[in-house]
Amino acid sequence: MICENIGFDTNGDLTFAGQNTAELAVKYGTPLYLLDEDRIRERCRTYIGAMASAFPGNFRVLYASKASSFKRIYEIMNEEGMGIDVVSRGEIYTAIRAGFPLEKAFFHSNNKTDADIAFAMDNGVGFFVVDNAEELYAIEREAASRSIKQKILLRLTPGIDPHTYAAISTGQVDSKFGSAIETGQAETITEEALGLSHIELMGYHCHVGSQVFDSDVFIRAADVMLDFSAQMNKKRGYLTKILNLGGGYGVRYIESQPTIDISANIAQVGEFIHSKVSELGIPMPQICMEPGRSIVADAGMTLYTVGTVKRIPGYKNYVSVDGGMTDNVRYAMYGAPYTILPAAKICVNREKMTADVVGRCCESGDVLQKDVVLPSAIKRGDILACLTTGAYHYSMASNYNRIPRPPVIMLSAGSSYVAVRRETEEDITALDI
Amino acid sequence: MICENIGFDTNGDLTFAGQNTAELAVKYGTPLYLLDEDRIRERCRTYIGAMASAFPGNFRVLYASKASSFKRIYEIMNEEGMGIDVVSRGEIYTAIRAGFPLEKAFFHSNNKTDADIAFAMDNGVGFFVVDNAEELYAIEREAASRSIKQKILLRLTPGIDPHTYAAISTGQVDSKFGSAIETGQAETITEEALGLSHIELMGYHCHVGSQVFDSDVFIRAADVMLDFSAQMNKKRGYLTKILNLGGGYGVRYIESQPTIDISANIAQVGEFIHSKVSELGIPMPQICMEPGRSIVADAGMTLYTVGTVKRIPGYKNYVSVDGGMTDNVRYAMYGAPYTILPAAKICVNREKMTADVVGRCCESGDVLQKDVVLPSAIKRGDILACLTTGAYHYSMASNYNRIPRPPVIMLSAGSSYVAVRRETEEDITALDI
Repeated sequence: MICENIGFDTNGDLTFAGQNTAELAVKYGTPLYLLDEDRIRERCRTYIGAMASAFPGNFRVLYASKASSFKRIYEIMNEEGMGIDVVSRGEIYTAIRAGFPLEKAFFHSNNKTDADIAFAMDNGVGFFVVDNAEELYAIEREAASRSIKQKILLRLTPGIDPHTYAAISTGQVDSKFGSAIETGQAETITEEALGLSHIELMGYHCHVGSQVFDSDVFIRAADVMLDFSAQMNKKRGYLTKILNLGGGYGVRYIESQPTIDISANIAQVGEFIHSKVSELGIPMPQICMEPGRSIVADAGMTLYTVGTVKRIPGYKNYVSVDGGMTDNVRYAMYGAPYTILPAAKICVNREKMTADVVGRCCESGDVLQKDVVLPSAIKRGDILACLTTGAYHYSMASNYNRIPRPPVIMLSAGSSYVAVRRETEEDITALDI
Repeated sequence: MICENIGFDTNGDLTFAGQNTAELAVKYGTPLYLLDEDRIRERCRTYIGAMASAFPGNFRVLYASKASSFKRIYEIMNEEGMGIDVVSRGEIYTAIRAGFPLEKAFFHSNNKTDADIAFAMDNGVGFFVVDNAEELYAIEREAASRSIKQKILLRLTPGIDPHTYAAISTGQVDSKFGSAIETGQAETITEEALGLSHIELMGYHCHVGSQVFDSDVFIRAADVMLDFSAQMNKKRGYLTKILNLGGGYGVRYIESQPTIDISANIAQVGEFIHSKVSELGIPMPQICMEPGRSIVADAGMTLYTVGTVKRIPGYKNYVSVDGGMTDNVRYAMYGAPYTILPAAKICVNREKMTADVVGRCCESGDVLQKDVVLPSAIKRGDILACLTTGAYHYSMASNYNRIPRPPVIMLSAGSSYVAVRRETEEDITALDI
């Protein structure tokens, strides 16, 4: 199995976090997002443990909450001692509702409006990750008007190509994010930040991309960022207090993808950074990482009910489910791979067929995955499970075709509870005048 | 200009439906969806007028409401004498809230659940467009339990490739939608439908794809569908009462796309169908069309405020706005072309630059359009207008990054009003437990 929280019970039925998936489908209805709370906590502890070993007493792990943002997840992150990366007023608002201590929040985004900045400042967000000069001056103005000194990091682009999907790679020079080291713009914005009286420059941030499997990507990024830190120290006497390397490690969606040993990888990054810092003769900054996907992705599973099995002789087979691009836009948008399995034991030792698993939207592009091997006996009413759906599913969901969003059901220690309730048609029309 | 409702006032500022766009941005804030109600009504009248000429006394024009579904739009459709195509319980629920007479509704979708079928039947939806045999029998069961006879059309795939985007073309044999004529499955399901005692088979439906510019696509579809109708008449004595050709005509997003003369095209389709029907010796069925995009797309415009203008020497320029893939996913998903203009007169006779217009989401793929020519003087606070955003924008919007959805502001006869109010952070967290 692609993740250890997935298995089969003695009847051969699919289990998730040790619970029978078909029974969960009956209890809560479909489509249904499941989230394995114990797995989420375990992943937080893996990151924190590895970072604590690599950078004793001087690290932060921030949950990149755009992967999945709702009230309960911030409570869990708080309980686990995680910081958070937030990207909008909406995420900050949600964290406030969860009682999350916002001094541990880092506010990202390539385009913060003046109103966003004011909102974040008024609610005590600890750190602003400043994307560009216009934003820097907007923050200076808001901080000045409150007579405070705002802690910031500068988002820089180190010029690293992480070889992931183009749509989710962000570390290159040519990016909508940050200021490039290569072009001299990173140096310019550092100087500007140091000259402002209501800004406290704490250091730098970079993010080389999402779903990173190459173990040396963080090392290459740290290499460039530390060289830049040393250069700013030499030129301006500015010592980096925080170096935020952004992102986290890749996640297995399908069997052919590797399993990443997060602890071993972070240990390697740690070794590199210690030796690099010592070579450069600069003090060790606080090191931050911002895993999102790798905290929640394989803690997630989506359950669907089959509506139609369509066989088109000489062409292909289609299995339609009661969800689709509205709850999982990642195949439609990126052609992302997924593993899809039946929840019941009908999959064992029976005749197989290949089918495209498609959604219920009136759109041909509404496909969850092509060429999925399923039991030929599959029929209307059967439950299908799409694995590894904890990240960028609920958070990217839409009401296209006026389809309500599924609930988020948390699984923990053999029991389950509702973290986000199922949307209704009444909810969908609530904004209509 | 790509559409006649777009212009410039005496100051050189951009107008939409005769109203100053920058003033609308101030009045309602940004990001902001505008919809030109008068244009929507004009397009309804164009279709109805052309269909009335082509098929006197025996036609229907159905608004494909997945293009943009909210309460007010169904009120307008009702006032204009349009029928509606609905694809989900959510769309039916919204139409009910608008007081739309559901006997004029056609219920589509490749995957109707038993609960959806029951809901539609209990609310008196006039016609079910039946996608497949499993659904046919589910409708028979529900109708039997209510002792009614349910009017249906059968959705067939005529095997037409309309040469539009793969993701929005639906008429080929290899499709998740409908039963194929070529494989004999259309004949089988027709026979099955005729044998059921709570089903009243009214005819056939096909949909060859969205954003169709080839004027002969509907003619080719009608050709295949009428041949099939004649064949069913000969073999089974079944006369088609309704032939629903689905879809509507393409819309201009950019100058290089053609303007379609809807009336002339429908007249051609009409001529063809009359001569074909007479050649086949079958009675003229009622002809239906289902325009969605061409009713609302160019009645729409989105206004954004610029946050950042980023120039990366040797690479490219980026202009970030306060919306993006959350309110317009069509570039991220399909690479769809758009025309983007500044709302204020700064565009006239000034130095230009080329920039990617990008959104505010923490994702590299959050692009609205690449290589847009804009005035070099563009800066934080300026308003940009993205044209032709009336279809598949509000309806596909998400809360990714917990960004609230913009309001829909209707423009009519020189005034404006809120049809869908702006979503708030409180709304977004309403489902969080």
